[in-house]
Formats: sequence, structure tokens, C-alpha cells
Amino acid sequence: MFDRVWANASLATMDGPADAPLGLIEDGAVAARGGRIAWVGPRRALPGPAGETIDCGGAWILPGLIDCHTHLVFGGNRAAEFEQRLEGATYEQIARAGGGIFSTVRATRAASEAELLESAAPRLLGLMAEGVTTVEIKSGYGLDLASEMKMLRVVRRLGAGHPVEVVTSLLAAHAVPPDCPGGADAYTDFVVREAIPIAAASGLADAVDAFCERIAFSPAQTARVFEAARQAGLPVKLHADQLCDLDGAALAARFGALSADHLEHANPEGLRAMAAAGSVAVLLPGATYFLREAKQPDIAAMREAGLRLALSTDMNPGSSPARSLLLMLNLGCTLFRLTVAEALLGVTRHAAAALGLGDRGVLRPGLRADLALFRVGRPAELCYWMAGNPCIGRVVAGR
Amino acid sequence: MFDRVWANASLATMDGPADAPLGLIEDGAVAARGGRIAWVGPRRALPGPAGETIDCGGAWILPGLIDCHTHLVFGGNRAAEFEQRLEGATYEQIARAGGGIFSTVRATRAASEAELLESAAPRLLGLMAEGVTTVEIKSGYGLDLASEMKMLRVVRRLGAGHPVEVVTSLLAAHAVPPDCPGGADAYTDFVVREAIPIAAASGLADAVDAFCERIAFSPAQTARVFEAARQAGLPVKLHADQLCDLDGAALAARFGALSADHLEHANPEGLRAMAAAGSVAVLLPGATYFLREAKQPDIAAMREAGLRLALSTDMNPGSSPARSLLLMLNLGCTLFRLTVAEALLGVTRHAAAALGLGDRGVLRPGLRADLALFRVGRPAELCYWMAGNPCIGRVVAGR
Ligand SMILES: [Zn+2]
Ligand SMILES: [Zn+2]
Repeated sequence: MFDRVWANASLATMDGPADAPLGLIEDGAVAARGGRIAWVGPRRALPGPAGETIDCGGAWILPGLIDCHTHLVFGGNRAAEFEQRLEGATYEQIARAGGGIFSTVRATRAASEAELLESAAPRLLGLMAEGVTTVEIKSGYGLDLASEMKMLRVVRRLGAGHPVEVVTSLLAAHAVPPDCPGGADAYTDFVVREAIPIAAASGLADAVDAFCERIAFSPAQTARVFEAARQAGLPVKLHADQLCDLDGAALAARFGALSADHLEHANPEGLRAMAAAGSVAVLLPGATYFLREAKQPDIAAMREAGLRLALSTDMNPGSSPARSLLLMLNLGCTLFRLTVAEALLGVTRHAAAALGLGDRGVLRPGLRADLALFRVGRPAELCYWMAGNPCIGRVVAGR
Repeated sequence: MFDRVWANASLATMDGPADAPLGLIEDGAVAARGGRIAWVGPRRALPGPAGETIDCGGAWILPGLIDCHTHLVFGGNRAAEFEQRLEGATYEQIARAGGGIFSTVRATRAASEAELLESAAPRLLGLMAEGVTTVEIKSGYGLDLASEMKMLRVVRRLGAGHPVEVVTSLLAAHAVPPDCPGGADAYTDFVVREAIPIAAASGLADAVDAFCERIAFSPAQTARVFEAARQAGLPVKLHADQLCDLDGAALAARFGALSADHLEHANPEGLRAMAAAGSVAVLLPGATYFLREAKQPDIAAMREAGLRLALSTDMNPGSSPARSLLLMLNLGCTLFRLTVAEALLGVTRHAAAALGLGDRGVLRPGLRADLALFRVGRPAELCYWMAGNPCIGRVVAGR
């Protein structure tokens, strides 16, 4: 006897063999007990008595989708800057006019927790409406202790207030705030000595992230951040090799990072090191698209290295104001030529791995009963359409 | 006394002067009487007594959005083909396996009116949910008399069944059906002698469209189609210069076309001829994106020629499975570097012009009271965000 059974559905378990990774089961059923998946298979094989049975009307069931890289909490937005840039304003003019990332930092610092919560909630609800059941959300627009902790508290409250699992990453090492005396090294001191230990002690951070880039933190500074995370017992992730090749992929691998993200300019050795370390490559096509980056991540090299690929919105006000994970499936297939299987694994199984979550991302007995139901003729439709939302149901921990 | 007043709103009338075309009015009001706009201006100047007043809660009001180029009615979809292509199948292999446009023709011919209506309705509702109040829908997947008329009837029924204005274009000259004895010339005979006169006589076609392209109809064949349209008293539109330069822009201009659409390969003389003829340039960034076309329309030349630019989904199963007009705003700005004003004019004022509709597309007394209400801080947000729907209200003919 199960708590609940979803039947009259096709399943993409995302748990198939290498040559058929979607793990398709036509006319299948999923059963849950105690918030976990208790049974998955063809309906005719379902052991009885089943318990409460939900007729899915021929929908497709996938594991609940996972958006594994977002900056979903922020003050304001950068639409005015977007408008000015299209009218010919240069980055310099926009920076002089107070634009760029530090305008988001100012707005985020100025906002109360309640205001940040109120502006972020619709963005979270938008993802949930598409079948997302787990979302990672980073800090990184506070850049001082109080504001970084404020962001992480808002993220925790978002998770507590909605039927979705929210995972936090402390991204204090996102940018060097212009008001920091002593520059990048001094700010790294702050991240290492204060932000990380305090976030860890407070239980507000599930992981530590950093932005290793010429305009942000050097590999040496990033390594210090990662050492501090290790001492605090927190796993690490990295914004790596987005704008140039600083060997960020190899750095992430050296610290056994859960993931390295972006990777447009990563070199093949770095990618191989990531694969050996078990780090996931998180692809963020929204940023590639929105910034009109000519250089794309080297998918062929990633495949050759045997890397697991995840796919995420990178939802943020500056480089990827993307409010749809389904749209990233289309962008990933269209821009990066991911296969449908790669794209769908990227928002399920491999996205879970990018967050170090072994209890979700596939339909398998024992794992969390997080499901997403879609009215589509085949899973490929989730990648094929540009916009439109075929999600007709969502289950979190069996409910 | 008005029938209805929308107040506590900011207005983008799209009726401003050349240097401020959005025509912004803060704290404005729009009043309707008899389905028409009766008054537009700052709320404090609204003459009383007003009548039923709707508090828009600080929303932005724009003219109802207009999607001026869609193939929204079709049988099936091409998700399986999309999947195969990403796995390395060539166009030839897909064609041999029965894919490509003729798979859509087969599915459309095989579908009943009821089936076509049922599959198209959610796509129409998706556009409407974004604030769209007028949609153009083409035939062109029937390619025989009965099937083309069936498509146009479905389009009319879609319009009759939903609170939206639907405009039809007969696109019998979309492709040469492989089962047509005599090839392109013989099929053009059919279009000229049967499809156009019959569609015109039945009142099913509001305009005639054609696909002038090396893989479709030559300029000479297209000219014959346009002559027939002229004789039938129908305005013309053209799919022009998408894949190569056949001087389609100049051909459209020569026939005083309402619009020429795509125009990736159009030459500057053709664009100038279009401007002189008053033809609108309809940009379809969804197709450019989805087909990964390296060649983009020459926006600088279009601006120089003084062309009016419209922006549309081109919603179709083969080259632009785009279910969002708002997403086209983002694509138009991101890919083509349209300004925010150009993009917004492209889905309002200039989209109306592309359909020859002088009674809508701007907020101005005397025109149809078609409105779209958005919860955004500024109109630029409609272009800035990738996905997400800020539309909170829609008014068609005052209701
Ligand atoms: Zn990021
Ligand atoms: Zn078209």
C-alpha cells in the first residue's frame, strides 16, 4: 500500500543506461510512501493494493526539475541600463552613471529582507510553475557581512515559505566592492576570516561559490576562499573561465568542487581534471546569449572528457535576466547543440549532482518523490518550443 | 461620461514624436466609450464625471499587443525532427524519413477542423495571456484547395471563439507540394486561378502572402500571385529575402505590399523602395535564432531608409516554434540590437501598419480600445527579461 500513485502517464526516469539515458517507460506509474519514491515501472507491473491513485491523463512525468545556479534574490533590476546600452551607451558611461553590478549591490544593500523577499518570490514562483522542485540561490550582491547574511536569510525564508527545496551558496567572493579599503586581497581576507566562518556557523550556507575572473578574484585569491570553505566544512562551486581562461576548471577540480560553471573559455586539460574529480560542468546559455558571447563552451571537449553537464538559468539582473528553466533547454539545444537527452539530464540528474544532492534528480525507489508532470507528446517538446509552459503538475516530497 | 476609465496607471501611448516615440504619460488615464478610446491623458486632466473607473494599481498600459506574422494553425509538431537533428541527422536524412515542412503539410491535411482548432487554441491563448489583442494567422500547410480553406476556416473560428481580433492571410504559395504535377509553375496556376479567387470570394482571406525563395517561388511566380491578389482586391505581404537575396524587398514594394517579412538578405535599394512604398519591415528574430542564421537583417540600412519595423513570433513548427511575443522583444533587442522603442513599436504601432490596420496600435481617441496592462517598473522591462509574463490585464474593444 502506497501513500499515492501517479498512473496513466509516460515516465522519463532519467535513470536509463548510457545509450538511452532518459529511461523512458510508456504507460508507467510512480508510487510514493513517506515522501520517497517507493516504486517506479510499467503500470501493469504495479503491485497492489495501490492506494490513492492520480490519473495523469497521459502526461509525461519527469523528476522534479532542478535549477542549480541562480542569483534569484537581488534588489532592483537593470532594465534602464539595458535600454541605455541599446541606445549606444558604453559600459564606461553606464558605470559612470552608477550602473553595472554595483547598482545591484547598492539596491540589494538598501532593500529590507521583506522587500527582497517580495521581489524574489514571483521569480521563484515562475520557476516552480515550470516544474522546478529544487533551486539553488546564491548571495553575492551584499559584499559586506550584514548584507550577505541578509541575502542568505532571505533565501532560507523563500525556501521555508514555498513548497520547493532551496539550497544556498555563499558567493561573498562575487566582486570586490569599490568601497573596500585594500582592494581584492583585503576583501578576500574578509571573505576568508569573516563571511565564510560566520555563514557556516549560522547554518545559512550550504556551499561556497566564487567568481574567478580577471575582473573579480585571481586563482590565488579563489584558492584562499576554497581553503576557508574546506575548513568550515562546506563544499565549493566556481564561476570559472567565463570571460577568459584562468585555468578555473583545473582549480575547481583541485578542490573537488561540486561544479564549475560557465566554462566558455575552459581548456581541455581543465575539463579532464574536472571529470576526474567528479565535478559537474554547469552550462549557462542565458548568459552566453544575453551577453552575445562569441565564445561558447567546448561541448565536444566536455563530452570527450566524460563530464556530466548541467544546465541552469543563472537568473541574475546583469548577465542573464532569465526567468524560465524550460527556455534554457531550448537555448542549450539551439546555441550549444546539446542533445535533448543532455539538456534534460542537465536540469534533473546532473543538476542534482552539481548541488551534491544524491537523493533526487532521477525517478528511482528510495529517492525523494519530487515529480514534474508535463502535457507533451514526447520529452523533446520540453526543449523544442520557445516559451510556453506545458507543466500541469508538481509534486514535492510526495505531496 | 465614459463607459469605462483605466486610472492609476502609467501610459506608453506609442503615439509620441519621433524623438520620444513611446509617448509616456505618468499617472495617466485611458477612457473608452462604445469600444473606442474616448480620452487619453494625465489623470488630473480627465474630464468628469468619469464613469466606471478601474484602478490599475500603478501598472503600465500599452496598446494591446499585435502579433502580425504567425503560422499558428498546424497539425503535429516537429519535436522529433528537432531531436534527431541534434543527434546528427542531416536535413537529407530527415527529409527521407518524411520530416521537414511536408510532414507538417501531411499532418495538417490529415487533421479535422476540430483537431486543428484544439491544437491551435492553447497557442493563441498563450499569446493572449501576454497582452496580445490582434493576431495574424496564415494558411500555407494545406497546399491544396480544400486544406487551405480548412485552415482559413479554423483561423476564423479561432477569432470568433476568443476575445481577440484575428486576421487571416492566404499563404497557398508557401511551398510547392511534391504531389503537384507540373511543379512550381503549375502550382502557381492553381494559386492564381483557384486558391486566391475562391478565398477572396468566400471572405476567408484578409490578405495574400507568398514565400519568394529559391526553395519556394521565384520572383516571377510571386508577381503572378500578387497580380491575382490585386485582381481579387486583397492586399499582399511577402516572405522575402530570408535565405538569399532575390530582390524580394523591391518586389514587395512594387506591389505596394503591406509588409515584407524576414529580410535577412535584403539589399539596401530594396529596403529604400519598401520605405517609399510604405511597406513595413517585419523582423522575425525567432527564426533567425532557431535556424542559427549567421546573416541578420541589416537594421542600420533599415533605419537609414526610414522603414517602419515590426516584430513578430513567426510562430511555426519548423523554423520558429515560438509561443511568446514578449520573448521576441528580448530576441529583437539582444540579437538585432533594436532599441526598446523600436521593439515596442514593432509589436504595437508598426505591427498594426504591417496588417494595414489604421484603427489600432496606439492609444489615441477614436481608435479601438485595445489595451494591455503590465506590472513593470518601466516599459523597457518588457524587453529586458527573458521569459516571465508581467501582463495583468487585457482589454479588447473596451471590454
Ligand atoms: Zn552566476
Ligand atoms: Zn512566416
